Amino acid sequence: MKSITVAKLLSQDKTLNEIEISGWVRTFRANRFIALNDGSTINNIQCVIDFENTEDSILKRITTGAAIKVKGELVESQGKGQNVEIQVDSIEILGDSDPETFPIQPKKHSLEFLRENAHLRTRTNTFSAVMRLRSALSFAIHKYFNDNGFYYMHAPIITGSDAEGAGEMFRVSALDTKNPPLTEDGHVDYSEDFFGKETNLTVSGQLEAETYAMSLGKVYTFGPTFRAENSNTSRHLAEFWMIEPEVAFMDLVGNMDLAEDFMKSIIQYVLDNNLEDLEFLEKRLMDEEKTKPQDQRSDMSLIEKLNFVVDNNFKRVSYTEAIDILRNSKPNKKKKFQYIIQDWGADLQSEHERFLVEKHFKCPVILFDYPATIKAFYMRLNEDGKTVRAMDILFPAIGEIVGGSQREERLDVLKEKMAALNIDEEELWWYLDLRKYGTAVHSGFGLGFERLVMFVTGMNNIRDVIPYPRTPQNAEF
Amino acid sequence: MKSITVAKLLSQDKTLNEIEISGWVRTFRANRFIALNDGSTINNIQCVIDFENTEDSILKRITTGAAIKVKGELVESQGKGQNVEIQVDSIEILGDSDPETFPIQPKKHSLEFLRENAHLRTRTNTFSAVMRLRSALSFAIHKYFNDNGFYYMHAPIITGSDAEGAGEMFRVSALDTKNPPLTEDGHVDYSEDFFGKETNLTVSGQLEAETYAMSLGKVYTFGPTFRAENSNTSRHLAEFWMIEPEVAFMDLVGNMDLAEDFMKSIIQYVLDNNLEDLEFLEKRLMDEEKTKPQDQRSDMSLIEKLNFVVDNNFKRVSYTEAIDILRNSKPNKKKKFQYIIQDWGADLQSEHERFLVEKHFKCPVILFDYPATIKAFYMRLNEDGKTVRAMDILFPAIGEIVGGSQREERLDVLKEKMAALNIDEEELWWYLDLRKYGTAVHSGFGLGFERLVMFVTGMNNIRDVIPYPRTPQNAEF
Repeated sequence: MKSITVAKLLSQDKTLNEIEISGWVRTFRANRFIALNDGSTINNIQCVIDFENTEDSILKRITTGAAIKVKGELVESQGKGQNVEIQVDSIEILGDSDPETFPIQPKKHSLEFLRENAHLRTRTNTFSAVMRLRSALSFAIHKYFNDNGFYYMHAPIITGSDAEGAGEMFRVSALDTKNPPLTEDGHVDYSEDFFGKETNLTVSGQLEAETYAMSLGKVYTFGPTFRAENSNTSRHLAEFWMIEPEVAFMDLVGNMDLAEDFMKSIIQYVLDNNLEDLEFLEKRLMDEEKTKPQDQRSDMSLIEKLNFVVDNNFKRVSYTEAIDILRNSKPNKKKKFQYIIQDWGADLQSEHERFLVEKHFKCPVILFDYPATIKAFYMRLNEDGKTVRAMDILFPAIGEIVGGSQREERLDVLKEKMAALNIDEEELWWYLDLRKYGTAVHSGFGLGFERLVMFVTGMNNIRDVIPYPRTPQNAEF
Repeated sequence: MKSITVAKLLSQDKTLNEIEISGWVRTFRANRFIALNDGSTINNIQCVIDFENTEDSILKRITTGAAIKVKGELVESQGKGQNVEIQVDSIEILGDSDPETFPIQPKKHSLEFLRENAHLRTRTNTFSAVMRLRSALSFAIHKYFNDNGFYYMHAPIITGSDAEGAGEMFRVSALDTKNPPLTEDGHVDYSEDFFGKETNLTVSGQLEAETYAMSLGKVYTFGPTFRAENSNTSRHLAEFWMIEPEVAFMDLVGNMDLAEDFMKSIIQYVLDNNLEDLEFLEKRLMDEEKTKPQDQRSDMSLIEKLNFVVDNNFKRVSYTEAIDILRNSKPNKKKKFQYIIQDWGADLQSEHERFLVEKHFKCPVILFDYPATIKAFYMRLNEDGKTVRAMDILFPAIGEIVGGSQREERLDVLKEKMAALNIDEEELWWYLDLRKYGTAVHSGFGLGFERLVMFVTGMNNIRDVIPYPRTPQNAEF
């Protein structure tokens, strides 16, 4: 007798003797029907017990959340809603769950309540589906890069460099905070710290990934990154995971091709492999949207949105064209945008990005050639001297999901830009070395993993797509 | 004309017209033969140029480390050492490399020197092979778990809990260090910090992984973990990656079965997919060992060691049996061990582990049922009251590579152990909840990823198997 999962049992089309399966009780009704779940699928298997021959003391302990082991026979189901069910011969209570205190009762809980019980929330259909999809997307990402000749690179998490400028950083230290060593002028003396200098948590692995692209050719990172920004919104986390591919000898057009193919492939992967979870979340989202005013509801269902990305060519539009379109758009003229677009050089907001995708082009959009002034120092300057070879990919509902660029490969131009921004050359000596020794065109992009999981699952709060969210005032669990 | 990789060209068995390929010059000899590498494989492709029709100013710039693009024809090679080569029609210098200053010359560099140039060291055969294997092992791990119904879980990196006791932790803070807010009694007031309390970098994702196993059934983590320990050895890093599977309804025997199957599968994966890199590293290791006294050389070559793991059943031995064997062993009696084994309860050292694997059993060994006193609080107490359901897997050359256990699933026993060790129940309320609501037998193990990469690549210093090592006094790059 071998243990087996609910997912495997439900895919059987024949009866099986001597089944043994363990899981958690989702519901128990009529002293007879147990809906059993083991996490392998969103679906429960129905276990039918012979309550007349089961002790009362056992029946009482079959409560929501209890862990049980049943032995029996897999048979065709007599009832509706399932093809097979288990006729239980014996049942063992592995772990009780007191119905008076168990927080996850078989009823609708608010997402806020479940966040406070994040250690138990994957015992609900919604969160188990979200986290299975998060796992599937992770695997799809590794598989895509592996299939396409990329090497996975672990960029460092603790970094001595603070020159990247992508955001506020957390400091990492092993010093005694009560009595830290001080320098003569009264500052904390980090030369006495673990690493002999001040260190921070990384905001991006890109610069290090470039060093590997310039030797291994095609690489990617997939690791945690951090921002110490006090942004208490439904779209920001202090700790989140990022994917950053980087490719030597590839220009911005190649970068767009790669990003489009990548995004389509990983979304196709979950459509192919995780349809049951997607269907559940689609229904959940529809129910949620019914509570909203008509004009805030989405035009497309969850799965329609995923197919929308897979089936449409991404429209490639220069920043300059996009500004023209936005300036002349109805919501701009009628002052419906919160931020009115007036001049070239303006940074685009989510409302503008969504207008371009959802109303104007009606397909995913890649904007490119942004003003140098609103983009990072390492992006390649165009011949016009005022735009850089940057690109952002815009998705329905979510706006920007990918940001990338061709990197400045010319030593003199890079040094000028760093000087203009007061970035210390000594801090990034190794990054400059890449331009000194065998420099070449290269490009890459970054994808915030939680933004992707939000898009794919339809969850509206980023705290609901990562197991244990880190946000201002919150590092529980 | 489409760009292609060296790996693909070398696997061609026919001539190809109009090839275009970019890469870095490894060597250039006789003004004629360029060994070109693009990171896709350890092998170079030979590019033959017609030097009589190539300008001198170009020839001079074909130096080690320069990035070039060549166009030409792929033909059968006339020379030895390769089947195909490129007859170059045109060559373009993309990025020069000044031979006077480029650190990575075509000669033997010490590993120490290359560590100081970690941003360029993957331009050597050794480090490109190591990092390709690191990538392949990562993928093999994800693939193994995905194929076997596990879900990938991202455990939090920043943690508010310091109860795990696995080692010294780094503190994470966003407070102003010059003038931190103080409490009335003069301590730093962490309630004013970003997360509203003191936070640290995680030492293990296990406890959080348990919460997911107890809902999704089979899960694993693969992420960075940290130790603020001042261990300046060839086996310790302050930042390293760890794999931690955790499975509900699985006991210690199932855990051993899983770990053995897992280790064999991922090693088989690189034997199947990365043989060229392994062969190169095997030769490197042999050359290195020739410089050592005979008795310090390995009995097995690198690939023999890998096959040794794949081909042998892991011998399962209780700690108590192992102590008997060690106590009666020659090196113990002749006092050849640095640490002489006398009493039951002793912690085993690497020398003892290697003796069991290499001399006594001559196969990988799984030790189990360790004394409770030398193991962590969460391991399941045996009926004898003095041993716990722990296991360690011991490998040749490296000693312990995997450590795991069945977890204590009984609320009362767990609370007693926590109390005995002064671990605050309030700190781990969520961990205790798993034992309150639907508890069940569950087990898991941890594998230090860099230890695995060391074993597979034969590299002797852990700093040489991670892109940018973090160690005391070192957080460069």
